[in-house]
Amino acid sequence: MASGIAREQTVEVPPGVAAAVVEARTIGVVASVEAAGPRRARVAIDYPWRELVSDLPQLLNLLYGNISLQRGIRIAGVDWPAELLRQFPGPACGVAGLRALTGVAGRPLLAGALKPVGLGVRELARLAGDCARGGLDLVKDDHSLADQPSAPFRERVLTVAEHVARANRQSGRSCLYVPNLTGPVDRLAERLDDLRDAGVRAAMVAPMLLGLDAVRALAAAAGGAGVALVGHPALAGSLCAPRQGFAPEILFGDLFRIAGCDAVIYPNTGGRFPFTLRDCRAIQRQLLAPLGGLRPALAMVAGGIDAARLARWLPEYATDTIFLVGGSLLGRPDVAAAAAELAELVAGRASSGGGRG
Amino acid sequence: MASGIAREQTVEVPPGVAAAVVEARTIGVVASVEAAGPRRARVAIDYPWRELVSDLPQLLNLLYGNISLQRGIRIAGVDWPAELLRQFPGPACGVAGLRALTGVAGRPLLAGALKPVGLGVRELARLAGDCARGGLDLVKDDHSLADQPSAPFRERVLTVAEHVARANRQSGRSCLYVPNLTGPVDRLAERLDDLRDAGVRAAMVAPMLLGLDAVRALAAAAGGAGVALVGHPALAGSLCAPRQGFAPEILFGDLFRIAGCDAVIYPNTGGRFPFTLRDCRAIQRQLLAPLGGLRPALAMVAGGIDAARLARWLPEYATDTIFLVGGSLLGRPDVAAAAAELAELVAGRASSGGGRG
Repeated sequence: MASGIAREQTVEVPPGVAAAVVEARTIGVVASVEAAGPRRARVAIDYPWRELVSDLPQLLNLLYGNISLQRGIRIAGVDWPAELLRQFPGPACGVAGLRALTGVAGRPLLAGALKPVGLGVRELARLAGDCARGGLDLVKDDHSLADQPSAPFRERVLTVAEHVARANRQSGRSCLYVPNLTGPVDRLAERLDDLRDAGVRAAMVAPMLLGLDAVRALAAAAGGAGVALVGHPALAGSLCAPRQGFAPEILFGDLFRIAGCDAVIYPNTGGRFPFTLRDCRAIQRQLLAPLGGLRPALAMVAGGIDAARLARWLPEYATDTIFLVGGSLLGRPDVAAAAAELAELVAGRASSGGGRG
Repeated sequence: MASGIAREQTVEVPPGVAAAVVEARTIGVVASVEAAGPRRARVAIDYPWRELVSDLPQLLNLLYGNISLQRGIRIAGVDWPAELLRQFPGPACGVAGLRALTGVAGRPLLAGALKPVGLGVRELARLAGDCARGGLDLVKDDHSLADQPSAPFRERVLTVAEHVARANRQSGRSCLYVPNLTGPVDRLAERLDDLRDAGVRAAMVAPMLLGLDAVRALAAAAGGAGVALVGHPALAGSLCAPRQGFAPEILFGDLFRIAGCDAVIYPNTGGRFPFTLRDCRAIQRQLLAPLGGLRPALAMVAGGIDAARLARWLPEYATDTIFLVGGSLLGRPDVAAAAAELAELVAGRASSGGGRG
């Protein structure tokens, strides 16, 4: 089966069809096979990537193109060649850049979400202002806010940005508005101009909705414009199922970072999604680990985090974490006051030491 | 669980958080729940798509964004509103266009693949010429041929196209060369120019490697240039696993067609991939079925088809099918003669009646 994978992902013809010299320079080589159970094995395959990977779509293809169509094959880890990674600039801002944009040092960051879809521009802007006034470090659009009639993209971005900027002038802080940029790939350049017009310095993209390579191309333009990118996991779940796809830390940790995400949103354990704490911490570790010359990126842990749970989860993650508080905040009668309570919790974390990471 | 899905995919906040008026116009509505086993149910959810879907990424998000991160939820069918589909032009050529480009009527089409990656431009061109001379209707690049040093994109396309054109002049037929266009999204326009320079009228794209919306955007430009698009399933497998993702006929049948693929490659049953005959025929049925005003698209059935198996599979698919013969052809000492044998088999199908479909 290991040889089958190595062949399927490269020459893709039965033995004996291709000339020996072509196979020799192109086929994957099974480097090791270790039994991991009665019907499972951990296999290492060495691919001649210089001959095969000309771009990011082709990298995805080499890692998991045709074998995605088979069953029970999972990419558990990748030893990235530094020379291969040099093709990809990765995060333009990274951890340091996002900390500079928000003016937050020495503690985790706190983010809120503008939702639900269906709210008008004024209501979203008021909510964003409350979050910023309450002391959140980032406030992001819900990933379902796109360019709907209830809150069209450009109008929403300009108005929400103005409300957040006003709150920042009052508070002296630098809450960062992160609109959802996920939309038609042929309109991303125009929407990046909208962000510039609004003075917005960050945006959210869902790499699996947009295409990972569209994010890579966007990241180059966004980096030039000083706009940080936050990756959202919509549609990515099937690509990291337990016996299929990529290990979550490879998909959200390595691949989203290689595409240029400065922060990556993923579901916290214990919420509405079946991620384990091990998965969640592995993603974060991977986002912060050395990866060629690429900047480290921030984990943005999301899903069912309210005040009680925030206290529970704060010690479980590194200081370089963004905690995304969702619906629980929006349900409170005074959103700014509720945000302030959470902000206090996180500020307390700064003095309590480095935590795990 | 059904209500949970309807909420997760739309307002994404717990009950009571959003204003009733906003929920009323935005939330998904569970239309029916039918038990399908002790722990399975078939659920219909009615989404207020006019409020939610502004573009193709957002359509994917609504169908399967966040719930992709949960387990055991699968999109088994979609009742497409005709008005929603009007946003998407779909295939520019479709079945009729591809038949016109190849000059083939009344019988299935036969395609060959240029591989393996690692072959040089001359060798690929010679192989393509042999396939064309032998009577294949299409000859496509392997999906692993991108822009590698062994056969750079522009040089490959120009040279292979020239060899196929020469074979066509000799044979009087119109074998269609289908180079692999899958590559960096910000270079697709330039590569489309390369195709134009080479007089090439079709190209292959892998929607999951490129991003489905990148294919949609490309299809508009390609359609304008008279270039048909053939979709490849690389990386798409995890999105149609048995208890996760989309039913294969929704992913390859509806979504690839909505994005603008004129033909869609997928693995035949009985080959190296675990697709059932039911899946394979369902995809084809969906590609040909009415779908708003979108043109029907051709199924391109692939994977382990050799001369013996071709005879076996010919009666199982509709006349509007492309059979893709892979490595078995390339292993033969005289490729043109081997192609001619296959072409004869398929020509025989024309007189044997309509087959199933």
